[in-house]
Amino acid sequence: MSDPLSSGPQSAEDRLIANCFRPIARHPGALGLTDDAAVLRPPAGHDLVVTADAVIGGVHFFPEDASDMVAKKALRVNLSDLAAKGARPAGFLLTLAVPKLLPESWVALFAQGLGSDAELYGCPLLGGDSVRTAGPVAVSITAFGTVPYGTMVRRGGARAGDVVLVTGTIGDAALGLDLRDAVTAVKRMKLDSRHQYELVRRYLLPQPRNALAEAVRVNASAAMDVSDGLVGDLGKLCAVSEVSADIEVAKVPLSEAAAAAVALDPAAIERVLTGGDDYEIVCTMHPDRVEAFHEAAVAARVPVTAIGRVQRGEGPPRFLGSDGKPMQFKQPAYSHF
Amino acid sequence: MSDPLSSGPQSAEDRLIANCFRPIARHPGALGLTDDAAVLRPPAGHDLVVTADAVIGGVHFFPEDASDMVAKKALRVNLSDLAAKGARPAGFLLTLAVPKLLPESWVALFAQGLGSDAELYGCPLLGGDSVRTAGPVAVSITAFGTVPYGTMVRRGGARAGDVVLVTGTIGDAALGLDLRDAVTAVKRMKLDSRHQYELVRRYLLPQPRNALAEAVRVNASAAMDVSDGLVGDLGKLCAVSEVSADIEVAKVPLSEAAAAAVALDPAAIERVLTGGDDYEIVCTMHPDRVEAFHEAAVAARVPVTAIGRVQRGEGPPRFLGSDGKPMQFKQPAYSHF
Repeated sequence: MSDPLSSGPQSAEDRLIANCFRPIARHPGALGLTDDAAVLRPPAGHDLVVTADAVIGGVHFFPEDASDMVAKKALRVNLSDLAAKGARPAGFLLTLAVPKLLPESWVALFAQGLGSDAELYGCPLLGGDSVRTAGPVAVSITAFGTVPYGTMVRRGGARAGDVVLVTGTIGDAALGLDLRDAVTAVKRMKLDSRHQYELVRRYLLPQPRNALAEAVRVNASAAMDVSDGLVGDLGKLCAVSEVSADIEVAKVPLSEAAAAAVALDPAAIERVLTGGDDYEIVCTMHPDRVEAFHEAAVAARVPVTAIGRVQRGEGPPRFLGSDGKPMQFKQPAYSHF
Repeated sequence: MSDPLSSGPQSAEDRLIANCFRPIARHPGALGLTDDAAVLRPPAGHDLVVTADAVIGGVHFFPEDASDMVAKKALRVNLSDLAAKGARPAGFLLTLAVPKLLPESWVALFAQGLGSDAELYGCPLLGGDSVRTAGPVAVSITAFGTVPYGTMVRRGGARAGDVVLVTGTIGDAALGLDLRDAVTAVKRMKLDSRHQYELVRRYLLPQPRNALAEAVRVNASAAMDVSDGLVGDLGKLCAVSEVSADIEVAKVPLSEAAAAAVALDPAAIERVLTGGDDYEIVCTMHPDRVEAFHEAAVAARVPVTAIGRVQRGEGPPRFLGSDGKPMQFKQPAYSHF
């Protein structure tokens, strides 16, 4: 990516950049991908929020997934981090490692998906690097956002008495992954095909909550995005904030499809709460802030639901079942290792 | 990297981050690697310069290379881009993809090398991501630098009449790679072992010219770092600047070791000029600037050498041999594809 122009005959890399990526790098700071670096000027009085997330073929997506969806997922998992931190997207760098036998059409469709999301979320491609690998496709994205000085929402601000809220619905992507992953899961769940489709779609294509970022920044005491499962991620937020929390599992918002899956197999609630890949926001805020946050959420057309309270103490959050007792989980969070 | 704390039993990823990377992430904006994102505040009136470069096992380094050297190389190739753009390092994000069977000691030594260079170059670790891969180790780094508004040195500013200069010596790393790569090369070159060692060391560990960044920013009309070979990279700079250049090959600075290699095998000059991995700076400047630049270079203890002139016209730069005729190259530049 950093070597787009060649004085001699164009290399395959040069062609790839010129044909696929230059057309989507329209931000002036990208310098048409003709330089070694890009220029980013945060607005005066603003911090830069920087985050990096990679997706790897065979780990985070299936080799047969359409490459425009892979590109969108790679960008959206980063956009989701920006949203949870209350930041407005400012641009991103892409590092793409591709195996030799990958057809150029894969990359062309990838760039198409990337460009379309860059436009949709106002997060332009600024530059990056493209390399060969003997391994699977690896997509590493570094995304930039901006917030007024000192206002990035951290994990570490939750206080006892704060309300815990989540956006959207929880568990769909994890159930969707199960459905893709194993025919047995499909059989076990006996879901109708519309519900199956909806769950799989949530796994394939996250819907980051950037529309709610400003409301999170203004109202939340702490926030993060749910990527490794609500149980584990809220646990991390509580640990950094040195608090605990009580969550009423019955209040955790489920989609119609996930509710149907749990009705068919009550044990699926563990996957819902711990499976991850949700890319929703979990946040905490003073009770006085909840009404304003709800109003902002309605305006942004993002559903938000209060699911519990922050508690004094340092144990992991308790997820209370309908019997009022804390649930036990076999594997509280997705681990990459 | 973004998920360092766990409320439950620590995952292997959590341990890795806590033990290896948190100790080297001392910048306040890194938030102790306990958040989803890092905060970076460029000084008022400064642009941010952003660049990303990846190194892949089996492509950019050998699987048996010591992992502290791999880490240093991964960071230094990015620092070299910042230096060539006239930027002062501000920090970096790391994405590390590791195969399952990689021993934790590999990562520990990697982090040690990274931390030592982060200190040496004043470029702190701010955050990142760690993921599993079924492929080789992949290290992707995004580095940040700062320059006063609008002063990033681009490829596109060279003007006819400007002097072309390079830092350090050219070709060592390419010859060093040949020496590592094939026993035949060693035999052909018949180099003494000290020279061999010096060339291999230049391949293993680039010496980015960050000490000269400010002088480049103040004096150069255009600059880039030499990573894909002097011939190809100067060609890119000239193409973006819409100029050509005449280079006197006899003036291209060679180390004693490279000079010995070329004396043994005159054809090796093509590798010197086109092989890449130099991580030196090639820049152009108005003749009036050269003296001040030389003085700054002496102060920074970085050798700089004038090797030719920018010319009107748009053809690729001509590398003139001792007979005054342009040399012809079989492969003008390293291509990643």
